[in-house]
Amino acid sequence: MPSTPPRPRALFAMGHSHRDALFPPTAVQELTRHVDIDPQLVAEVFDDVPDLASVELLITSWGCPPLDNAVLARMPALKAVVHAAGSVKHHVTEACWDRGLLVSTAAAANAVPVAEYTVAAVLFANKRVLEIGGLYRQHRTAQDWSARFPGFGNYRKTVGVVGASLVGRRVLELLRPYDFEVLVADPHIDAATAEEVGARLVDLEEMLAVCDVVSLHAPALPETYHLMDARRLSLLRDGATLINTGRGSLVDTEALTAEASSGRIHAVLDVTDPEELPTTSPLYSLPNVLLTPHIAGSLGGELARITRSALEEVERYCAGREFTHRVTRAALTTSA
Amino acid sequence: MPSTPPRPRALFAMGHSHRDALFPPTAVQELTRHVDIDPQLVAEVFDDVPDLASVELLITSWGCPPLDNAVLARMPALKAVVHAAGSVKHHVTEACWDRGLLVSTAAAANAVPVAEYTVAAVLFANKRVLEIGGLYRQHRTAQDWSARFPGFGNYRKTVGVVGASLVGRRVLELLRPYDFEVLVADPHIDAATAEEVGARLVDLEEMLAVCDVVSLHAPALPETYHLMDARRLSLLRDGATLINTGRGSLVDTEALTAEASSGRIHAVLDVTDPEELPTTSPLYSLPNVLLTPHIAGSLGGELARITRSALEEVERYCAGREFTHRVTRAALTTSA
Repeated sequence: MPSTPPRPRALFAMGHSHRDALFPPTAVQELTRHVDIDPQLVAEVFDDVPDLASVELLITSWGCPPLDNAVLARMPALKAVVHAAGSVKHHVTEACWDRGLLVSTAAAANAVPVAEYTVAAVLFANKRVLEIGGLYRQHRTAQDWSARFPGFGNYRKTVGVVGASLVGRRVLELLRPYDFEVLVADPHIDAATAEEVGARLVDLEEMLAVCDVVSLHAPALPETYHLMDARRLSLLRDGATLINTGRGSLVDTEALTAEASSGRIHAVLDVTDPEELPTTSPLYSLPNVLLTPHIAGSLGGELARITRSALEEVERYCAGREFTHRVTRAALTTSA
Repeated sequence: MPSTPPRPRALFAMGHSHRDALFPPTAVQELTRHVDIDPQLVAEVFDDVPDLASVELLITSWGCPPLDNAVLARMPALKAVVHAAGSVKHHVTEACWDRGLLVSTAAAANAVPVAEYTVAAVLFANKRVLEIGGLYRQHRTAQDWSARFPGFGNYRKTVGVVGASLVGRRVLELLRPYDFEVLVADPHIDAATAEEVGARLVDLEEMLAVCDVVSLHAPALPETYHLMDARRLSLLRDGATLINTGRGSLVDTEALTAEASSGRIHAVLDVTDPEELPTTSPLYSLPNVLLTPHIAGSLGGELARITRSALEEVERYCAGREFTHRVTRAALTTSA
């Protein structure tokens, strides 16, 4: 029997419940074909973890503690971090970049369900499906819907995507088969890039004034805090729909609540600021608002897509190939 | 100035309100470039219509009376019917086929919004978006949604399309960018055709047993009456979603009400039998049912797509070209 080369030593670093959900026995079995990993060992903190010194690869996810200087000092063999979730900002510190660690993320896989939720929200919003469903449920008789919602429907509507992020780009891709005019606003791309991703580049404020639906896919950065403030919200057309599946902090909740309460605009909100709204918030009960509790991202059966992405990255690393979804320090300044 | 050839005489035959909605002044102006038509004259009945004898082309839509022998006898010049709506079954009689009339339909244009509604319904159904939104609204606090809805999400779910109709095929096309296994059941197509339209051909009952979502796009024919009866509904998996945007008569409403009331299955119903449910129907208020009042088809701004389709067909006819969307007598025996 020929001897196999030694497999790199790997370690899970994430919340226990996430490990259980992301790496069921079949996934662990697949992992162990490529790396030497103790399936019982899941680091939520690094204090008591034995043999840190020999760990070459960290498999991280939600709940991984920050990889700071103190942690890295105990891991001299660490070369790479495969993140089985979206943003690496919480745990990949400056010290990791200074050390030259290779970092990969499953953000692309994580972007898919958010984009899917968004596309469904766009299609239902233009058609006023939930508003009409609500009225039908309430009155239990049909009305003249065209009179109630003049011009409703998805034909030749204008959809604006704010942020050509991973999610934003996936949304643009999924919107192609429909009869929409699609606009994108993003200070970090040029007109040619916008065209490549299937949209026309416009200024945010120009977008707000012409769109039937505006969907937010910008990262949470100091410069995007309250990107949709009272003034910008006021630029939206009467009857326009604002979709936020990005970050709650992108929107001034108080200003949005005022605009939605007046009935002037519609909203689909999967994220809010605060994350859980006060129980007195009108956003819970407005007929022109669909409010969901941060579920657009990967959940339930969708975690398997993240697992698949992470397993492929581990396999690539072990085969000496480059990561497909490598993260760099530079990219993080403009992304989530 | 060169003389132009005489334009064929055309006549609107539809409900007045549909004429106004489908053919606003700009559309009439475009029509008059190709045909000689009196924009004031809209036949809801043919009794008092002057100069029927010279009409070569009928432009029909919802509300056109049946073109029976008596009517046709008064229209010796009639050669073609351009229908600015979906099914021609209500007004195109056997006498029309016997007479050899050319018939065109805007059913393909009309199929688009139904397919769009369906795709959004599929994406929201697998993710339990409306159920979770309802629970969040009710309890105003987040729960462990993965525990409440095990395995929810759109990744690698199985979607079944019943009927490779115009709508069914458009649904199949729109489902391609997603991570679904897609099945189709239709007694009138073979496996190769199913593959061409992006699905695997299965028996209806096999489909019901394995799908997470089943969407009905079969025509209303004697043999499809109560296609989804109590027995077939019982074959659906626990937690499966039935979508009906086709015809209410495809489903045994009483049996569906029982299955949905128990919470065993979910439903998205845009059509029901009767068309308007009794106000006492539990389907109005079940959290696992989205009920809408027959709005998935072309409404509001979507009528313009039908208008566009009809105008193109009129232009083709006048240029001596074949209709793009010709209907034949034979095709009607298996379609809507």
